[in-house]
Amino acid sequence: MLQAKSCRFAAFCRVTGNFFIYITISIMSLICVGSMAYDAIETPFGKREKIVGGAAVYAAYAASNFVKPINLVGIIGNDFEEPEIKSLEAKGASFEGVERIKDKKSFFWSGRYHMDMNTRDTLVTDLNVLADFNPVIPKSYQNSEFLMLGNLHPATQISVIKQMNTRPHLIALDTMNYWISSAMEDLKVVLKMVDVLMINDEEARQLSGDYSLVKAARKIMDMGPKFLIIKKGEHGALLFHGNNVFFAPALPLEEVFDPTGAGDTFAGGFMGHIARTKDIAFENMKTAIIVGSAMASFCVEKFGPERLKEISKPEIDDRIRQFIQLVNFDISLV
Amino acid sequence: MLQAKSCRFAAFCRVTGNFFIYITISIMSLICVGSMAYDAIETPFGKREKIVGGAAVYAAYAASNFVKPINLVGIIGNDFEEPEIKSLEAKGASFEGVERIKDKKSFFWSGRYHMDMNTRDTLVTDLNVLADFNPVIPKSYQNSEFLMLGNLHPATQISVIKQMNTRPHLIALDTMNYWISSAMEDLKVVLKMVDVLMINDEEARQLSGDYSLVKAARKIMDMGPKFLIIKKGEHGALLFHGNNVFFAPALPLEEVFDPTGAGDTFAGGFMGHIARTKDIAFENMKTAIIVGSAMASFCVEKFGPERLKEISKPEIDDRIRQFIQLVNFDISLV
Repeated sequence: MLQAKSCRFAAFCRVTGNFFIYITISIMSLICVGSMAYDAIETPFGKREKIVGGAAVYAAYAASNFVKPINLVGIIGNDFEEPEIKSLEAKGASFEGVERIKDKKSFFWSGRYHMDMNTRDTLVTDLNVLADFNPVIPKSYQNSEFLMLGNLHPATQISVIKQMNTRPHLIALDTMNYWISSAMEDLKVVLKMVDVLMINDEEARQLSGDYSLVKAARKIMDMGPKFLIIKKGEHGALLFHGNNVFFAPALPLEEVFDPTGAGDTFAGGFMGHIARTKDIAFENMKTAIIVGSAMASFCVEKFGPERLKEISKPEIDDRIRQFIQLVNFDISLV
Repeated sequence: MLQAKSCRFAAFCRVTGNFFIYITISIMSLICVGSMAYDAIETPFGKREKIVGGAAVYAAYAASNFVKPINLVGIIGNDFEEPEIKSLEAKGASFEGVERIKDKKSFFWSGRYHMDMNTRDTLVTDLNVLADFNPVIPKSYQNSEFLMLGNLHPATQISVIKQMNTRPHLIALDTMNYWISSAMEDLKVVLKMVDVLMINDEEARQLSGDYSLVKAARKIMDMGPKFLIIKKGEHGALLFHGNNVFFAPALPLEEVFDPTGAGDTFAGGFMGHIARTKDIAFENMKTAIIVGSAMASFCVEKFGPERLKEISKPEIDDRIRQFIQLVNFDISLV
């Protein structure tokens, strides 16, 4: 597996014939830690009884358009089908860090969305293999310079960070209301260990105790992360850093077909862009937010990760152009 | 009162001393039709028992930063205080089209906001003088090239348009759920007479019968207006025109102190910019949306129009710069 941080090659220039061009290609890799699952999804537009899902799966599909390899860390059961593994591997995902449990099933989640697509009822949550998840970071992943920690128990997230011999350039973390309520002490610890926190608006309010997102952001950044991304679903996403704030809209779509995985896809697109550009400055994070939003806008067009499996680079470029059009304006001051 | 559409003057150039510079200054005026009221407002941050309000008042204060005169059309009672009239006149508002009723009180509205500021309870609505409102457009207003029709009965809005000897360059219309439910036939007529419709997301869904705002926008533009602005409060605003769409965020604020009048302030800022620039192309409307959003972001900082009364041009410039920062990003395609 291609794991070197950078390689150098020389190309003879056939046009001029008389000199060499040296190009440095840096190959960055990204670790994605998170759930790998099967979901049953019901939306106003239809239903799927069993479709692959989980935070790491969505993030991997999104990030694979920008960076390879995607070093997956997760746990799957005996029902996780070989074609799904092959499909991810074909996109550049490594399964070396994915534990396979022969006598148990994969994590299963079932949910139903209502007309507004902003609320959903969870019908079933079968942890299955996820109940025993103690992620082990393989030696071959140790050179990865970017780490995306999907929504898991904060103690599990801490354990992953501690396994890295060299601290990654950038560590991003997702969490949820459940851990804010039930594992706040561990969450406080892991927040001090990461660079970027990605949560939704309700989670930001719950974590900070402040209704105003501007005030909430300040309090949360005081807890550790230098960058805070607040996801607002169909209302876009905010990036906070110090006194700076950036806003990216969600693309207005004819139809949101299935929002499952949109947040994880956003995270994958964001980290994919950061890993590709190796630039963790605020200005580049703004661009990463747009890339993440573009990827999320694909995700919701079909069930589960179906749309993510098929998108092409020209489609991504076209979608990003739509984002530029969506927010671009010229102004002269009054 | 300055009412000429344009005037031309010659200035002797003292620097070179040997030629004249001709400068054409076009003076555009804007008619604002709408309620002029007193409100009682209660928010989580405090309350005001009596504060000036009404769509035309908010729109006039916002627009006055960009265009003069603001030709007000409204109706007020014996309680409308002289200092409020003087304050608006000092900003360039004309009261020639404002009817004053000696034996009745001004329109009165009282409401209470909850913590999320997106929902409010209306406690009192006393129509008072507004029950007899039959706006008359004074002769001196006939040259006005821009017309903002605040939220009133659609039949009243039709009557105003019909009184204009020359059709204004641009007519913008506000309406609300009440008229969509109770006066749909008149609303359909007036929609065919206007260029820009400004409504909120719930009203767009109600008017079109479509949940998707993209689909709703298409249906509503088929009803008449070539431009549709869908206001989403703290989640920003969308501008639709043909197949084009533009999004402007709301500025993330530490505190939304009082959202009363924010939509009317947005409309006033939007029309003020359009009237100042005399450019009704989609590209310039995008800018107008940003200007409207900037004005609305001031409005919510204090009770009623208090903040709008005191803002300066440098403050507006600074706020618009914040909007540029908020959405500005550089991107190279993948």
